Amino acid sequence: MKTYLECVPCFMGQALRASRMATTDEKLIKKVLDETGDMIKHIPMENTPAETGLQVYRKVQKITGVTDPYKKIKQQHIAEAKELLPGLEKMVDQSSDPLLTAIRIAIAGNVIDLGINKSFDLVEEIKRIVSQDFALFDYAAFKSELRKAKSILYIGDNSGESVFDTVLIRQLKKPVIYAVRSQPIINDVTMKDAIDSGLDKVARLVDSGSAAPGAILSQCSTQFLKIYKDADLIISKGQGNYEGLSDEKRTIFFLLKAKCSVIARHLHVKEGAIVLKGINLPDL
Amino acid sequence: MKTYLECVPCFMGQALRASRMATTDEKLIKKVLDETGDMIKHIPMENTPAETGLQVYRKVQKITGVTDPYKKIKQQHIAEAKELLPGLEKMVDQSSDPLLTAIRIAIAGNVIDLGINKSFDLVEEIKRIVSQDFALFDYAAFKSELRKAKSILYIGDNSGESVFDTVLIRQLKKPVIYAVRSQPIINDVTMKDAIDSGLDKVARLVDSGSAAPGAILSQCSTQFLKIYKDADLIISKGQGNYEGLSDEKRTIFFLLKAKCSVIARHLHVKEGAIVLKGINLPDL
Repeated sequence: MKTYLECVPCFMGQALRASRMATTDEKLIKKVLDETGDMIKHIPMENTPAETGLQVYRKVQKITGVTDPYKKIKQQHIAEAKELLPGLEKMVDQSSDPLLTAIRIAIAGNVIDLGINKSFDLVEEIKRIVSQDFALFDYAAFKSELRKAKSILYIGDNSGESVFDTVLIRQLKKPVIYAVRSQPIINDVTMKDAIDSGLDKVARLVDSGSAAPGAILSQCSTQFLKIYKDADLIISKGQGNYEGLSDEKRTIFFLLKAKCSVIARHLHVKEGAIVLKGINLPDL
Repeated sequence: MKTYLECVPCFMGQALRASRMATTDEKLIKKVLDETGDMIKHIPMENTPAETGLQVYRKVQKITGVTDPYKKIKQQHIAEAKELLPGLEKMVDQSSDPLLTAIRIAIAGNVIDLGINKSFDLVEEIKRIVSQDFALFDYAAFKSELRKAKSILYIGDNSGESVFDTVLIRQLKKPVIYAVRSQPIINDVTMKDAIDSGLDKVARLVDSGSAAPGAILSQCSTQFLKIYKDADLIISKGQGNYEGLSDEKRTIFFLLKAKCSVIARHLHVKEGAIVLKGINLPDL
């Protein structure tokens, strides 16, 4: 997915929010905004927003000297999500369609996105999403591909959401490789966050090699690209991974909540919609 | 009021929205964003946001060649507001406190603000604001000053809102001078818009001399400054005028809805609050 004009003010907003997370020094924050402003004319609009997002966060890190401004809040979100875990597992067990309920829970976790300027109430969001209609729902194709799959690549998105991913992975009942970002970026899930989330107990963890807040294949490691190529089924969580992978030519299933107008428009859904969308689906 | 860091992403958002109003040429819009980005490092943070707003809109005008991108929508809002006028006048007449109801209606009109990235439903807003509690309510002081006043300066804000201002001006029952912006800026009320709104029938109209989306006294004409100095009572509508006048040393009454986090914080109220706030009030 390319960058849209609407992404430009959003980059400035992200620069501000990430800087505020890193420091209270208003002069340093203003410097981040100044340099982000200078950067705008150089943004390649054909690139994905996640690639520019990486440049913005690099500026925040360089100017504030804080490499992981979201460290504390990531730990908090993982802890909060873990507290909810027994209830969520029970919800899945008691469901008439445990796989679908687990998918809904994995999407509900996708609200824990600090790149987006929206507040959220995790418990309320779970309640809503468990009964919300999907705007795009390629569930039949998903089940069919899952049935055939011997290997699954699951590309993670945010920390906290990562705990909810364990619920879905348990229901997949297949070997899963879970991919994480190579470096801290916003609240995205890194190797450490994945282990803290208990993902090492349900999947093999792999560093994608991409430091961007989304799977940008040109930045991914050879190891990841081989897994990506060989996987029978790919599940991609969240907006950033969608930005990186939406133009790919292979079958991928995207699980996300459309949290900004640009992603919503690109998917032809309303803001706030929940989506299980498969691309390049084989004929059923 | 000075500029806050939160205003910076907002300037980019305003540049985008105003450009989209002016043109569909994405390259021209990107050029506005590029130049606004370059401008950020030069923003004097001690200036009011309205002054920087003026610079942003000047860029939109220069780059797109459209001097009044909001012309059509201003006319629409004035027409819509006029349709509601008989109902509003009736609401005031039937009220147990016509002056207060007219104040509420004048504030309800303040949602017609296209500098802010919020959609609104005018009829719903009127219903809400007519019964909404004020977060700041210097009504006793206002009535006391109004009783003594021989001359009133009423500083207008947006087109459409301007029609609602006629309702309040009728209830003031004193000679009123209504000040407008000297040039089209966002959807702010100009001389032509004021006449279209029927304000010439209830007040003497004056061009403030300020082209900014707020009364910036350093930009105002000598004529306006004399009126400003001599007025017994000043009523200032909306956020832009608050930005320009909040640090003044004379008595001013601000009527507004706090539509952004920066203004809300500056007033120590919640976003969405309605406000009748007097500054430098004499002892009652």
